[in-house]
Amino acid sequence: MGELFQARTVDGAREILQRHLKEQESKDRQRVPLPEALGLRLAADVHAGEDVPGFDRSTMDGFAVRATDTFGASESLPAYLDVTGEIFMGKDAGGEVGPGQAWKIPTGGMLPPGADAVVMLEYTEALDESTIGVTRPVGPGENVVRRGEDVPRGSLVLQAGHIIRPQDLGVLSAVGVSEVEVKSPPRVGIISTGDEVVPVDNVPGPGQVRDINSYALYGQVKACGGQPVLYGIVRDEFELLQEMLARAVSECHLVILSGGSSVGTRDVASKVIESLGEPGILFHGISIKPGKPTVGAVVKGSPVFGLPGHPVSAMVVFELLVAPLVRYGEYRKNPLEFALWAKLTRNMRSAAGREDYIRAKLKESEKGELLAEPILGKSGLIATMVKAHGLAKIPAGKEGVEAGEYVAVKLF
Amino acid sequence: MGELFQARTVDGAREILQRHLKEQESKDRQRVPLPEALGLRLAADVHAGEDVPGFDRSTMDGFAVRATDTFGASESLPAYLDVTGEIFMGKDAGGEVGPGQAWKIPTGGMLPPGADAVVMLEYTEALDESTIGVTRPVGPGENVVRRGEDVPRGSLVLQAGHIIRPQDLGVLSAVGVSEVEVKSPPRVGIISTGDEVVPVDNVPGPGQVRDINSYALYGQVKACGGQPVLYGIVRDEFELLQEMLARAVSECHLVILSGGSSVGTRDVASKVIESLGEPGILFHGISIKPGKPTVGAVVKGSPVFGLPGHPVSAMVVFELLVAPLVRYGEYRKNPLEFALWAKLTRNMRSAAGREDYIRAKLKESEKGELLAEPILGKSGLIATMVKAHGLAKIPAGKEGVEAGEYVAVKLF
Repeated sequence: MGELFQARTVDGAREILQRHLKEQESKDRQRVPLPEALGLRLAADVHAGEDVPGFDRSTMDGFAVRATDTFGASESLPAYLDVTGEIFMGKDAGGEVGPGQAWKIPTGGMLPPGADAVVMLEYTEALDESTIGVTRPVGPGENVVRRGEDVPRGSLVLQAGHIIRPQDLGVLSAVGVSEVEVKSPPRVGIISTGDEVVPVDNVPGPGQVRDINSYALYGQVKACGGQPVLYGIVRDEFELLQEMLARAVSECHLVILSGGSSVGTRDVASKVIESLGEPGILFHGISIKPGKPTVGAVVKGSPVFGLPGHPVSAMVVFELLVAPLVRYGEYRKNPLEFALWAKLTRNMRSAAGREDYIRAKLKESEKGELLAEPILGKSGLIATMVKAHGLAKIPAGKEGVEAGEYVAVKLF
Repeated sequence: MGELFQARTVDGAREILQRHLKEQESKDRQRVPLPEALGLRLAADVHAGEDVPGFDRSTMDGFAVRATDTFGASESLPAYLDVTGEIFMGKDAGGEVGPGQAWKIPTGGMLPPGADAVVMLEYTEALDESTIGVTRPVGPGENVVRRGEDVPRGSLVLQAGHIIRPQDLGVLSAVGVSEVEVKSPPRVGIISTGDEVVPVDNVPGPGQVRDINSYALYGQVKACGGQPVLYGIVRDEFELLQEMLARAVSECHLVILSGGSSVGTRDVASKVIESLGEPGILFHGISIKPGKPTVGAVVKGSPVFGLPGHPVSAMVVFELLVAPLVRYGEYRKNPLEFALWAKLTRNMRSAAGREDYIRAKLKESEKGELLAEPILGKSGLIATMVKAHGLAKIPAGKEGVEAGEYVAVKLF
């Protein structure tokens, strides 16, 4: 039991979980029309079946020329060229640019054969209807996007596992992918426990409170691309909880239990998790505040978390331990996780060896600096999360941060 | 015409647009079940109909006591109390804690009448089955969440217009809001123009390219909470474009035209926008790179944007000028917009008086610093956006940034 109760940092908890995960992410795939792929993860690499663009393309309004014909041109001594054609958007040239010739071309137009550069309109002068003077030389390829310069045929466009962003929809369209094979979002089961917890549409009786965690966690799962499955509220009884948890584990890729802040109910939850299969519970408790009484487990390759009952604690631990698994299917180094720096507005104490995550409201000082104002209050108060924009981190090595010091912040 | 062609910064463009907007955001409301409200905007203020929690609640496992009974208690001289009852989760006390008495209470339990504090289990010793010694005094209210301490009855829980986050789902559940009145997401019409542009499922002929902007912009609209409406590709002809734009303006809250990088097609788009109604075009061009040839207009109170045809330019201008309107229905000061700072990895030149937005890949240096590596390439290349994580800004006042200097970054 010794190792289980050893204090773990977030990194330590991630590390031991990662070691025991098998294939916790969805293997299910689906084909969706291009626009619906936003925010989903690619199921397979996408390679370009063709060059983008499929032809040399002008990036300017001007004249398509042979670059060598413009060498040495200047305002005092322009290069004179015969205008022998015009390119129209989306059309084949239907002819060739010979030596000493120029074709009128719009931005985006297809470079005609023979030409290898475009002279901007600004650097030409019309002498008569069929002759221009070029007042500045161009090099080969100048003002041209080469065939395949954006996406070369056969190149890897996007990698399997990549989460599709707006620009990715753009590039997929460019290479003609109108349907995308994506991984189905992982199913994340959410179970609230606690004999005092009642559903949102009930009026709480004496000693009862409404279920906050199910909805907050539902939102968090959604926000990181998962598919939340609400299993409702289960009483703190071994058999009931075991039955529900077993069902959730069999139906989902990851399961979150929340509730049970009292020692007695935590014990029930732990026993239930332990009863479901190997390797079972990997740690009881992590050395963070809030969020200490967190249970991390892997059951038959799938992660199962026993989150604290206090809503702030549950949400913080979700952000730190659950969200990466939902989003990426694994823990990976993410330099953007706590990349925002803000000046703390008041002294905050911590304990050495413990990571503190402070709810913070972000605002701008008169000098334009980003300030992090701690939102104080017990971890049972959901309203403190509503007032906050993010979490400021006090690392385990520090015993506090003074007003005016910079802290790393993760937005939520 | 003079003022129209004056170089404008992003702030200048926002300012003139804001002045001419009437009610560009959706007035439509809908009631949705609580979980579906995530990411939507509240249509009306939400006030708490009751106190949360509805009773004084223990935050610890221990004993509910009258604080005065513990004053002066210490390890050498404990305060002895009679254990006369036990609180069970979610249940009424069914009795009162009298002077000199204590009731066993779990974390989250309802404080019984008479008691005003909780002594943690750790600071008690069991003398026999019905007597404890308290070894440390508690003050009134200690280890207790007071009735209404999280959300007091009648208080403003969330304001109209607020975008609902996971924690907001939690607080709404806490106050018993199982259905939420939200604003319908603004409808954003997207029209691609260009005689060379073909739909994603076509094989481009000579001189043709597939429609990239419709999909990239679709993703951007979605990502900031709007409802994209794709109007497809329209040829660069005044009547066709006018008909489609008039339809889009009548059906949507905001319309984006993209394409027309050549001067000729830009002129057609401008004339069409101008023909639709007052006040019409507010500016031709902004002093940013990429994105200079942007047209900003308001037609009968609704914003209409003529974005550049190059995908990078279109996406950058969307982020800077369109996204805030879709997200908030207005331009507002947002200290988090360019709040991330990273060290540029190479010198980048700019021009004084022009804002440059550099596509940047973010990574961590060996020392753990955040680095911004510029992705170079013409603004016609969508692949450069795919490689980037965000935009680094070089303000109008600077003529460049040197390697090692910090730049402000906006993620996308």
